[in-house]
Amino acid sequence: MTTTISVIGLGLMGRPMARVLLAAGYEVRGWNRSRLDDELGQGIPRCDSLVEAARAEVCLLMLADSGAVNAVLEQFEPHLTAGQVVLDMGTSDPTYSKAHATRLAEKGIGWVDAPVSGGPEGAAAGSLAVMAGASEADFAQVEPILHTLGGNVVRVGGPGAGHTAKIINQLIVGLTIEAVAEAITLAELSGLDPTRVQAALKGGFADSQVLQLHGSRMIARRYVPGAKATTQLKDLRLAQKLAAREGLNLPHLESTIQFYEMLIARGGGDLDHSGLHTLLSG
Amino acid sequence: MTTTISVIGLGLMGRPMARVLLAAGYEVRGWNRSRLDDELGQGIPRCDSLVEAARAEVCLLMLADSGAVNAVLEQFEPHLTAGQVVLDMGTSDPTYSKAHATRLAEKGIGWVDAPVSGGPEGAAAGSLAVMAGASEADFAQVEPILHTLGGNVVRVGGPGAGHTAKIINQLIVGLTIEAVAEAITLAELSGLDPTRVQAALKGGFADSQVLQLHGSRMIARRYVPGAKATTQLKDLRLAQKLAAREGLNLPHLESTIQFYEMLIARGGGDLDHSGLHTLLSG
Repeated sequence: MTTTISVIGLGLMGRPMARVLLAAGYEVRGWNRSRLDDELGQGIPRCDSLVEAARAEVCLLMLADSGAVNAVLEQFEPHLTAGQVVLDMGTSDPTYSKAHATRLAEKGIGWVDAPVSGGPEGAAAGSLAVMAGASEADFAQVEPILHTLGGNVVRVGGPGAGHTAKIINQLIVGLTIEAVAEAITLAELSGLDPTRVQAALKGGFADSQVLQLHGSRMIARRYVPGAKATTQLKDLRLAQKLAAREGLNLPHLESTIQFYEMLIARGGGDLDHSGLHTLLSG
Repeated sequence: MTTTISVIGLGLMGRPMARVLLAAGYEVRGWNRSRLDDELGQGIPRCDSLVEAARAEVCLLMLADSGAVNAVLEQFEPHLTAGQVVLDMGTSDPTYSKAHATRLAEKGIGWVDAPVSGGPEGAAAGSLAVMAGASEADFAQVEPILHTLGGNVVRVGGPGAGHTAKIINQLIVGLTIEAVAEAITLAELSGLDPTRVQAALKGGFADSQVLQLHGSRMIARRYVPGAKATTQLKDLRLAQKLAAREGLNLPHLESTIQFYEMLIARGGGDLDHSGLHTLLSG
């Protein structure tokens, strides 16, 4: 029997993920808080309400932050019954995830936090990195779905571990974007062709998707998200909260947060997170 | 006819590179300033003197820094004749490289700066990233040699462009090591298994050779170089010099230089550059 999936949150990531699941033969229906342009939602069947979305075997959340997840769950949860699984693939605060998992488990409802990295490109290609936090039993229930969406799926630990791993992922991404921004700026001012530098560094220790993909956005001065600067800042603040709880001082995490705050204060909040480059290049 | 190559500098990188060239059928002879343990130099035929090394068609330099290159060239150059090529594959100051290229060109001697990234592992596998600076004609003379050593070979520009690109490479590597050190430390203190986090991040935007290779050195607290912290600091200072010349302020380059200075002041200069992690993890 076909597994039914509701995809709650049809944003930059939710839309391509819903399409990949549809193409793989799942019975998928989407729900979005605000009305979507027909063009954006094209080809994704819709639920009329959250209550209807709550009827799917797997309720996949792809929402902006913990606030949105908490608000949706509040409306949603009374309509869930034992055997269903809530699969939260957005980037949220792991403190909440653990609480959600415990509360849902009491009603026999599964919980998997399985945020992803790889952007809309990775989502459309089904090649995302998926970092999951769940009990082994809950994880097993959604594993085929996760392998449809991801090129690499790893259960990092129990509930919350996926969200924690994703926050750590974002720490690396934010700091790597700053590193690549400094590098591209230096290459340009040194009179090198930055595209040839990118090509020459390929395969060496400096190489990364951030160098090739986000670096190209910097070179072209074309900062169409991808992921917005405001989203990256939200994620880095979650990392800061996590570090503070452990009494840990992470100097480049702190300064990168300041750089994103500066970028957003200058009106760059809706730019791709690679827009950090504009602080250096003017 | 077989091309003859002298490899001048049989250190952590020069040794595996000489062996790869030998295995590919080149006539290779090595020279090292200090006497090498027989075990380290195993299988590499030796020149008795720099003068003898100067007789090869291609004189490949793999030395610690610009000072060593300048000193060797001073002894070496009077013995070179038109048609030979000096191939500098170490990481040096591009200001010197341009001067060397111009001076050698007057005698009909070629110059290629072609530093590499990928460490002793990449050198042994012949999979290095090679970033070259040379005239098209000089580059063409050594291109087959570079393809033997590298998995990716790109001429970035004229003489000095290879060294400049490598300095930019090192900027990214240094800053990525700090990013990964902060991430691994946060993962460990958050109670996650850092090895599972590495595995989960694979293929996403946070993934890199630094996360997988240098990250594993951090997790194991095993900082055998690779590349020494003192070498990384030397390279970052070259980046700082380049940035200063362009009137550019690169904040994370500056702070990473300070972190390496702290590491070295604490006696960690001979650790692998991933030893930066010890500043955070105690």
